[in-house]
Amino acid sequence: MKTERLQAFSDGIFAILITILVLEFKLPSYPRGQLRQAVWQQGPLFFSYCLTYVYIGVLWLFHHDLFSQIKQTSARLNVMNLVGLFLVTLMNYSMTLMAASIQSGGPADMRFAFGTYDLLAFLISGSYLWFYRYLWHHHELLQSNCTLIKHNLRTISKYPTISMGLYALALLFNYFNVYLGLILLVIGIIFHGISYYRTARVQEQS
Amino acid sequence: MKTERLQAFSDGIFAILITILVLEFKLPSYPRGQLRQAVWQQGPLFFSYCLTYVYIGVLWLFHHDLFSQIKQTSARLNVMNLVGLFLVTLMNYSMTLMAASIQSGGPADMRFAFGTYDLLAFLISGSYLWFYRYLWHHHELLQSNCTLIKHNLRTISKYPTISMGLYALALLFNYFNVYLGLILLVIGIIFHGISYYRTARVQEQS
Amino acid sequence: MKTERLQAFSDGIFAILITILVLEFKLPSYPRGQLRQAVWQQGPLFFSYCLTYVYIGVLWLFHHDLFSQIKQTSARLNVMNLVGLFLVTLMNYSMTLMAASIQSGGPADMRFAFGTYDLLAFLISGSYLWFYRYLWHHHELLQSNCTLIKHNLRTISKYPTISMGLYALALLFNYFNVYLGLILLVIGIIFHGISYYRTARVQEQS
Amino acid sequence: MKTERLQAFSDGIFAILITILVLEFKLPSYPRGQLRQAVWQQGPLFFSYCLTYVYIGVLWLFHHDLFSQIKQTSARLNVMNLVGLFLVTLMNYSMTLMAASIQSGGPADMRFAFGTYDLLAFLISGSYLWFYRYLWHHHELLQSNCTLIKHNLRTISKYPTISMGLYALALLFNYFNVYLGLILLVIGIIFHGISYYRTARVQEQS
Repeated sequence: MKTERLQAFSDGIFAILITILVLEFKLPSYPRGQLRQAVWQQGPLFFSYCLTYVYIGVLWLFHHDLFSQIKQTSARLNVMNLVGLFLVTLMNYSMTLMAASIQSGGPADMRFAFGTYDLLAFLISGSYLWFYRYLWHHHELLQSNCTLIKHNLRTISKYPTISMGLYALALLFNYFNVYLGLILLVIGIIFHGISYYRTARVQEQS
Repeated sequence: MKTERLQAFSDGIFAILITILVLEFKLPSYPRGQLRQAVWQQGPLFFSYCLTYVYIGVLWLFHHDLFSQIKQTSARLNVMNLVGLFLVTLMNYSMTLMAASIQSGGPADMRFAFGTYDLLAFLISGSYLWFYRYLWHHHELLQSNCTLIKHNLRTISKYPTISMGLYALALLFNYFNVYLGLILLVIGIIFHGISYYRTARVQEQS
Repeated sequence: MKTERLQAFSDGIFAILITILVLEFKLPSYPRGQLRQAVWQQGPLFFSYCLTYVYIGVLWLFHHDLFSQIKQTSARLNVMNLVGLFLVTLMNYSMTLMAASIQSGGPADMRFAFGTYDLLAFLISGSYLWFYRYLWHHHELLQSNCTLIKHNLRTISKYPTISMGLYALALLFNYFNVYLGLILLVIGIIFHGISYYRTARVQEQS
Repeated sequence: MKTERLQAFSDGIFAILITILVLEFKLPSYPRGQLRQAVWQQGPLFFSYCLTYVYIGVLWLFHHDLFSQIKQTSARLNVMNLVGLFLVTLMNYSMTLMAASIQSGGPADMRFAFGTYDLLAFLISGSYLWFYRYLWHHHELLQSNCTLIKHNLRTISKYPTISMGLYALALLFNYFNVYLGLILLVIGIIFHGISYYRTARVQEQS
C-alpha cells in the first residue's frame, strides 16, 4: 500500500480538526450594546483555542515529517495511525473543557479539565514514541535516504520522551496547584514547537 | 475517468465524517464544581463515539484497499460510490441516537437506536458486497496486477457476507434483549477490523 | 496556473458540503421512550437531506467531468469557479429551510422554502452553462483530446438549459400548488442525475 | 520538505473554512407562516457571509499563486504559514460578530465588530507582506522560473501594503462613523479581489 492516500487522509483529518476548533467560538447572547464585554468574557476560550491550535499545528508538522520518511505502509501502521489520530480528535473536546472550566472558575473543574488535557497530550506523545519504535524495527518501510530514524532512534525518541515527562509533571502538579499545572502544560507545548523547529533545521542542513 | 479524484473525494468524505463525529461531544451545562460529573455522564456518548470512530476507520481502510485496485472508474461505479458514501454519512446521526438512548436509558429507545445502527451497518456491508460483485463483472476497470478480486471473489465476498450475518443477528436479538444485540454489533465491528487486518496481511505477504 | 490545486480545492468544498449536510440532523429533545416517534418526525428533514445529497453529488460529478477536460485555468475561470461554488454552499441553508417548512406545514412557508431551492438550482444550472460558454470561447484552456466541449457546445449546453427550464417551471408552479412545484423540482434533480449518467456513458464509449 | 503536502494542508484549511461559514446560517425559530420574514431578518448575516466568502476566496487565490512559486519549504515558512492560517480561521468568528452587531443594531456593538474585522484583515495583509519579504530573502526556496518575487518585491508588496492602509483607515474611520468604516472595509476587500485579478492576468500574459 502506498503512503500517498494515507498521508492525504491524515492531512485531511488534521486540517479539519484545526479548522473546526473555531466552531466552538459561539457568540453568547448578550444585551444590546454589550458585545465588547461578551467577547472579552470569551478570553479563556480564546486562550484555550490559541494553545490547542498551536498544539495541533505542531503535531501535524511532526506527523508530516514522520510520514514523509515512510516509503510504504503496513496494515499495522495504518491501524496505529488511526489510533494516534483518534487521540488527536479528542483535543477538540478537551479544549472546550479547558475553556469552560476557566470561565466558571471552579478550582475542581479546572483541575479536572487541565488534567484531561495533560493526560491526552501525554498519550499523544506516547503514540509518536510508539510510531518511532515500530518504524525502527521495520526499516523496510522507510525511504532509503532516510537516515534520521534508522541511525538515531535515541535522538528522535528524546523529544517525545521529554514531552511525556513534562505532561506527566503537569498532571502531577495540577493536583497541588492548577495554575502551576497549566504553566507546565504550556511549557510542554512550547517545547514541542521548539523541538520541531530544531529537528527540521537539522534535517534541512544535512 | 481516472480514479485519483474519486479517491480524493471519497477520502475527503471519510476524513470529514470521522472528524465531525467529535462535534457531537457538546459539553452540557453543569453546576459550578461539577464538571467531572458532567463529563462522566457523557460516558455513553464516549462509548458510542469510540465504536463509530473504529467502524468508520475500518470502512475507510477497506475502501482504500478496494479503490487502490481500480484502474479506471465508470459512471456506474461513481454512482455506486455516492450511494455507499451516503449510507456512511448517516452513521453520524446513528451515533447520536445510540448515545441519547443509552443516556435516557429507556429500553424502547435503546432498541430503536441500536436497531437503526444495526440496519445501517447491514446496508453498508451490503454496499461493499455490491462493489465486489460489480468489479468482478468488470475486470477491465481493475489494475492488471490485481489478483484479489479477479480470482477470489468468493474469498473477498466472505467477509462482508459474514458481517451482514452478524448485523442481521444483532438486529434480531435486539428485539429480545438490547444488550445482547449491542454485544453482537460490537462483535460485528471488531470482526470487521480483524478481517481488514487479515486481508491486508495476506496482500502484503503475496 | 495548473488545474490540480483548483480541482483539489473544489473537490474539498464539495466533499465538505455533502458531509456537513448531516450535521443539520440534530436530534430534538424527546420524552423518554419516545425516541422512535421523535426520529419519525424528522422525516421531512430526511427527505430533504436525501434530495440535497443526490443533488450535490450529481453537481460534483458534473464539476469533476468538466474540470478533467481543462488543461490550464485562468484568473477569470478561478473567479467563476468561486462564484459557482458560492451558490452550491447555499444549498445547505436551503435544505434546512425546506425541512423546516415541511415540518411546520404552513403553505406560505413551503412556498417560500421550495421557491428558494428552485431559484438556487436555477442559478447553479446557469453557472454551468456559463462555464461551458466560457470554455467554448477559450479552447486554449482545454485538453487537446477533449472533443466534447470543442465540437458539441450545443449538445453539452442542452442539459443545463433543460434543467434551468425545469427549475423555472417548478418556481412558477410553486405559486399555484406547492406539491406540484416540489414534484417538478424532484424531476429536475432526477433529470440531472440521468443526464450525467448518459453523458458519462457516451464519453466512456467514445 | 516538499511543498505538495503543505499546499494540500493549506488548501484543505481554506476549503473547510470557506465551507463552514455557511454553518453559521442557523434558521431562527419562527411562528408558523413567517418563514419568509425570518429569512429576510437574516439579511445582515447574508451580507456578512457574502463579504467573508469573497474575502477568504481571494485570500485562497493569493495563497495559491504564492505557494505555486515555491519549490521547497523551510521549517520557518511552515511556522509562518500556520500563523497566517490561524488569522484566517478567526474570520469565521469575526463574521458572526459582524452579523450579530448589525442585527442588534447597537452602534457600539457595530463599532466593536467592524473594528475586529478591520484589525484581522489588517493583520492578514501584514502576514502576506511578511511572506513576500521572507521569500525575497530566501531565493533558494523559489522555483527557478519564478520572476515575480525575485525581481519585483516592490511591485508584489504594493498590494498588501495598500490593503493594510485601507484596513487601517477603515479601523480609524470606524470610530467616527461605523458605516463609513464598513464602506472602507468593503472597498478594501474589493480592491483585494481586483489586485488578484490584475496580478494573475499579468502572470498569464508573461
